[in-house]
Amino acid sequence: MEQQIQHIIDTKTKPLGALGRLETLAKQIALIQQTTQPRLVEPHLVVVAASHGIANEGVSAYPSEVTYQMVLNFLAGGAAINVFTRQHGITLKLVDAGVDYTFDPYPHLIDAKVAPGTRSFLREAAMTPEQCVTCLENGRALVAQVQATGCNVIGFGEMGIGNTSSAAMLMSVLLNLPLADCVGTGTGVADERYTQKLAILEQAKAVHSTVDATDPMAVLQTFGGFEIATMCGAFLEAARRRMVMLVDGFIASVAFLCAYRLDPSIRLFAVFCHQSAEKGHARLLAELDAEPLLQLGMRLGEGTGCAVAYPILQSAVAFLNEMASFESAGVSGENA
Amino acid sequence: MEQQIQHIIDTKTKPLGALGRLETLAKQIALIQQTTQPRLVEPHLVVVAASHGIANEGVSAYPSEVTYQMVLNFLAGGAAINVFTRQHGITLKLVDAGVDYTFDPYPHLIDAKVAPGTRSFLREAAMTPEQCVTCLENGRALVAQVQATGCNVIGFGEMGIGNTSSAAMLMSVLLNLPLADCVGTGTGVADERYTQKLAILEQAKAVHSTVDATDPMAVLQTFGGFEIATMCGAFLEAARRRMVMLVDGFIASVAFLCAYRLDPSIRLFAVFCHQSAEKGHARLLAELDAEPLLQLGMRLGEGTGCAVAYPILQSAVAFLNEMASFESAGVSGENA
Repeated sequence: MEQQIQHIIDTKTKPLGALGRLETLAKQIALIQQTTQPRLVEPHLVVVAASHGIANEGVSAYPSEVTYQMVLNFLAGGAAINVFTRQHGITLKLVDAGVDYTFDPYPHLIDAKVAPGTRSFLREAAMTPEQCVTCLENGRALVAQVQATGCNVIGFGEMGIGNTSSAAMLMSVLLNLPLADCVGTGTGVADERYTQKLAILEQAKAVHSTVDATDPMAVLQTFGGFEIATMCGAFLEAARRRMVMLVDGFIASVAFLCAYRLDPSIRLFAVFCHQSAEKGHARLLAELDAEPLLQLGMRLGEGTGCAVAYPILQSAVAFLNEMASFESAGVSGENA
Repeated sequence: MEQQIQHIIDTKTKPLGALGRLETLAKQIALIQQTTQPRLVEPHLVVVAASHGIANEGVSAYPSEVTYQMVLNFLAGGAAINVFTRQHGITLKLVDAGVDYTFDPYPHLIDAKVAPGTRSFLREAAMTPEQCVTCLENGRALVAQVQATGCNVIGFGEMGIGNTSSAAMLMSVLLNLPLADCVGTGTGVADERYTQKLAILEQAKAVHSTVDATDPMAVLQTFGGFEIATMCGAFLEAARRRMVMLVDGFIASVAFLCAYRLDPSIRLFAVFCHQSAEKGHARLLAELDAEPLLQLGMRLGEGTGCAVAYPILQSAVAFLNEMASFESAGVSGENA
């Protein structure tokens, strides 16, 4: 199959390899779908939101209530991710994985609330073992629900004030890297507050120094959050169902890392969409040997990187399906 | 106006600056159009094709007739640029600026043929001074024709076997850089043939050592090609008409460089879409202080970089027009 796909790519009317990353992307999608004529059907973007106990410890530039306020903004259609999913005909679903707020029912809001926010990992484990398992199950269930619409390409984004802290802890422990390499400015903590954020997280790491770094579930349970664990389950399930998975910025990539540690076979299904301006992301992508499609200096989350990158996946599929070959177009090949 | 635009961007429901390059792009387009609610209307992509005398001197991986064969492929709808412009609803126009072939009339083919190919600059100047002036006039006229459809955003691409050689000469002379920094593998000349290409171009540079590097028209006339000179005129005119100009890869960027040397005020109107894998392009972009939207390792020309990047411009305009503000969405601002 792989050779057959490569042959089709190589006989299109262009110099060998001249479409660069679009060629490797087309090949990846074709391999995922096990066909030389791949299609992207019913694209979905799932934004998973949760509140974080750590957000009340002074690590964030924004107050914790922004999490639920932004979910309301998503539901009203006014956030960046609403704009970009509308632009590209991507269905947007929102998931309450554990927001500290009681939402009215909305057609696009999926209730997967485990608790109204994690506990502060500065003091205790963010979740109970049961909560962590429930998040993974919820993630698997929502992917099944989305796939039932005919969807074969799914992206994930997140909202959760405090979640760059949670993600930085997970990355630091799972990859055995100094926290300073993993902690960034998040939504925009400046100078002094960054130093404070780093100090708080160093302290939290000391509190949990006995956690087993080779046990992804233990690490995930300790540092949370609910949206990260839910996305982790979703990645595992989407790969199992051979869907094209769009991985957004720093938080979603950390969720992918957790899933990847649980099941390395999911790697083939992941398209890394955007390299965030958040500090740890470049390093994390390098550890995952992932080359993101875009580097637009965004650091917003919400799955915005997936949505903005989506037309590039469509371009990859389109050239594979629609371009003429040298033979069919009557164009001469290379000089001997 | 600039402050007003920045204020609108800064009060959208996102951390300050969190949409990165999309924010600077939105601002640029708003400034070009002198409005806080910019629109992209009737996008066009113009592929300018020409034959090159230098192509018969052993610099290319493909034979010269590929130029006209690819124009026929464009007209039949089978090339990469056809696929990507169809994908994004961009109108594709083809321009015969001097191809060594007599085309039947086609609705989308604009006849601006100056001669059936340039002369070989290894032996003499590629064009006469009159031909160079005619190309610029043709470029200006075709932009006027395109704008008459209501178009306010125009991209340029090219086809011309041998034109990476022409572009490398122009870059080397105009920027006073060693040829080795400007000459790449083009459509794919490997090892020995690359050495041969570089040697031939070094020889050509010696032949024209007296050309005045501070006179863009003299340099352009000496090293051609017709498509580059036509694009040069087109950039000057599109900027004069305050259109958003999409600049593609290496060849189009060199055409932009020529235009920029003739009129530096055109810089505001240019959006650099893709950094080509062609060797000289990164350096050229740095010289122009240009940060391209995409780096997908493509090196195909045809304006493919413009077309693939176009949805990112649409995303920039969309967030500016459609996102809610903190106030309108009832979302809390940063912690004090």
